[in-house]
Amino acid sequence: MRIVALDENSKKDILADLLKRDPNNYTAYSDTVQEIVDTVKRDRDAAVFSYTEQFDHAVIDASTIRVTKEEIEEAMREVEPGLLEVMKRSMKNIRAFHEKQKTYSWFDSKPDGTILGQKITALSSVGVYVPGGKAAYPSSVLMNIIPAEVAGVEKIVMVTPPGRDGKVNPVTLTAAHLAGATEVYKVGGAQAIAALAFGTESIPRVNKIVGPGNIFVALAKKAVYGHVSIDSIAGPSEILVLADESANPRFVAADLLSQAEHDELASAILVTTSMDLAKKVSEEAKQFTKELSRSEIIQKSLDNYGYILVADSMADALETVNEIAPEHLEIVTKNPFEDMTRVKNAGAIFIGEYSSEPLGDYFAGPNHVLPTNGTAKFFSPLNVDDFVKKSSIIYYSKDALEAIHEDIEAFAEAEQLTAHANSVRVRFEK
Amino acid sequence: MRIVALDENSKKDILADLLKRDPNNYTAYSDTVQEIVDTVKRDRDAAVFSYTEQFDHAVIDASTIRVTKEEIEEAMREVEPGLLEVMKRSMKNIRAFHEKQKTYSWFDSKPDGTILGQKITALSSVGVYVPGGKAAYPSSVLMNIIPAEVAGVEKIVMVTPPGRDGKVNPVTLTAAHLAGATEVYKVGGAQAIAALAFGTESIPRVNKIVGPGNIFVALAKKAVYGHVSIDSIAGPSEILVLADESANPRFVAADLLSQAEHDELASAILVTTSMDLAKKVSEEAKQFTKELSRSEIIQKSLDNYGYILVADSMADALETVNEIAPEHLEIVTKNPFEDMTRVKNAGAIFIGEYSSEPLGDYFAGPNHVLPTNGTAKFFSPLNVDDFVKKSSIIYYSKDALEAIHEDIEAFAEAEQLTAHANSVRVRFEK
Repeated sequence: MRIVALDENSKKDILADLLKRDPNNYTAYSDTVQEIVDTVKRDRDAAVFSYTEQFDHAVIDASTIRVTKEEIEEAMREVEPGLLEVMKRSMKNIRAFHEKQKTYSWFDSKPDGTILGQKITALSSVGVYVPGGKAAYPSSVLMNIIPAEVAGVEKIVMVTPPGRDGKVNPVTLTAAHLAGATEVYKVGGAQAIAALAFGTESIPRVNKIVGPGNIFVALAKKAVYGHVSIDSIAGPSEILVLADESANPRFVAADLLSQAEHDELASAILVTTSMDLAKKVSEEAKQFTKELSRSEIIQKSLDNYGYILVADSMADALETVNEIAPEHLEIVTKNPFEDMTRVKNAGAIFIGEYSSEPLGDYFAGPNHVLPTNGTAKFFSPLNVDDFVKKSSIIYYSKDALEAIHEDIEAFAEAEQLTAHANSVRVRFEK
Repeated sequence: MRIVALDENSKKDILADLLKRDPNNYTAYSDTVQEIVDTVKRDRDAAVFSYTEQFDHAVIDASTIRVTKEEIEEAMREVEPGLLEVMKRSMKNIRAFHEKQKTYSWFDSKPDGTILGQKITALSSVGVYVPGGKAAYPSSVLMNIIPAEVAGVEKIVMVTPPGRDGKVNPVTLTAAHLAGATEVYKVGGAQAIAALAFGTESIPRVNKIVGPGNIFVALAKKAVYGHVSIDSIAGPSEILVLADESANPRFVAADLLSQAEHDELASAILVTTSMDLAKKVSEEAKQFTKELSRSEIIQKSLDNYGYILVADSMADALETVNEIAPEHLEIVTKNPFEDMTRVKNAGAIFIGEYSSEPLGDYFAGPNHVLPTNGTAKFFSPLNVDDFVKKSSIIYYSKDALEAIHEDIEAFAEAEQLTAHANSVRVRFEK
């Protein structure tokens, strides 16, 4: 990994470089995605089947698109029992953490006869996208479904691309079933997002679509935003380790590589106040890269978006952290909790040398669907609030309205909205 | 207002009709908006000044675009003292309600040496769009700025189109100052949204953009979504009154018209179980329309999207409410609180015959920026949570990680992410 002195110029270059990974910049695919979305909206099931054949090389029809109870039972039997137990223990932690995120309706009444409140209602239905491809990602299934289930969503519709044999990976299916998916459909890509947004003969329309995916999925989610709600638009993964000389270089290097292995656009950055640590981490990373099975991806990712930044001070280092706003932040310093208080922007913050990032991906409980590409400045980890919505509640007694009705009328008249003023006035006309 | 029997067919037609108002369907303007956004991104201030001259017929440059302290002081002097006092009383209620929405960071520690938590951080900066045009909308200024201020946002950047004289309406400026805007710029339309999303020489880039606007503003917000966060995409206003025979037809009619006066795309719908009420409301509405100053707009809005739907039962009526998911819902029935419990989808719910909708627009305290066009199925009123974000906190002690490290490794290996497994494994290698 290249070692770069952190100054205003290098920071500016690196920030610009990282933003090149922004899915919003992939306009080359926008038209293709829009066409897929429009076609699915118009031709519904027929378009879904046709795109699935084209992109996934799988033949699916109305009788096979929905995963059956038998398919789920078969999948459960195929999963290695040890993994099943691991998933169950992980789920327990994920549920427990998300239960703590629940918020409740409240109201505030006053003896003048007013009641104001906020009613929390779970969304009726959500769609969960789960990527397919060569590997199964059961952790992603758990992380997307469990918060919806905890929030009280009644209909949790999972979609995932089928393999060429028209089947869904058994581990994915098992995770979906354990987590609480109410229905599963064999469809992926932009066509799956469009189907969930507009509905087809086979696939129900949902209120919100969540879940990570490739660039087609990300652009499709943006295209249907407004018709339905979406989670944040996921970009490539990233890790930033903030470390001082007290950090273990071997642990730091291993953690950096854990994200670099995701794909060639992933970013792994160490920001440190110690040149000694910088050199050692660079060495360890080189060594690990040789040994690991995904070394080719790791090497490309590190060459593209991997940096070791050496800062003059912890204050400079923290400023850079806040500007990068990383998806995953590890703080491995002498006072990691105190340093955490100065972090404004990060998806998940891993504190101390034993809080390795994959702990959060798989087990601790907080969600691993996190804002990427600097969007931690304004987006949050996927959470229970994403699956509920609020309604304001307003009750005024006659006396309470009478006491202030002239204020409302004056305000409305000032905005030249005379029918607004009239609606209050008529209640007190002689 | 036309009276229609509520059945499956009429409901389907009306729902389809209402969705025609969806800003996502105005694709005719999409290309224009995208061009404005791209041009402002590229040419920055120069583009902003040029579009302001083209669309607002106002000449603005780098020395005049930002509202000065003197301009604010002048504006404060111009506002009618009575209105100033009304705004202050309204602000007090808005602040009090939004203070109750605040959520706090929390953590949960266990004696095995684990700490999990959720850190709440205010966004650093937000942009607030305030429409210009013939009238001033100080209430909109208060409703958009106050929740950001309560959340603790440091930089609250307001933008609003200047008049031909290059000035901002004094009432708008006064409201901005009272509510806590930290800077105000004279720019409107899609060019204002682009400037806030990408920054120009004069206008700072922000993390999130909120505030209502016309179709150009709505489409521009959609175009920049992902680069920054936005509030929900606002469509035309709407009111739905759910009433039985106990309702006062004169009050109901006046309230329906209060939203119909907004614009020709606004929708006013009465859903009632009483044909008698339906007829009386239709009569009253006709009478009011003649008397009100904005009668032309009201008449067009009622002709376009105004309906009185007569339902066979309160259950049918409530089902329709939930399918329409109105921005504003008034419940004027014998048991309005009980009926409220059956409402799943509505932006704000006004309960009882003295809770007239404009009470919420101007005075009660809950936000008047509400989800429109059926998006109350998944969006919420603008609220304090919109101006904060969450970061997950994860701390595991060595012992805590050691106890479960094999679970993480097994899960990672199952996903073929060997560098993930490695990062945990190295911490316990002999």
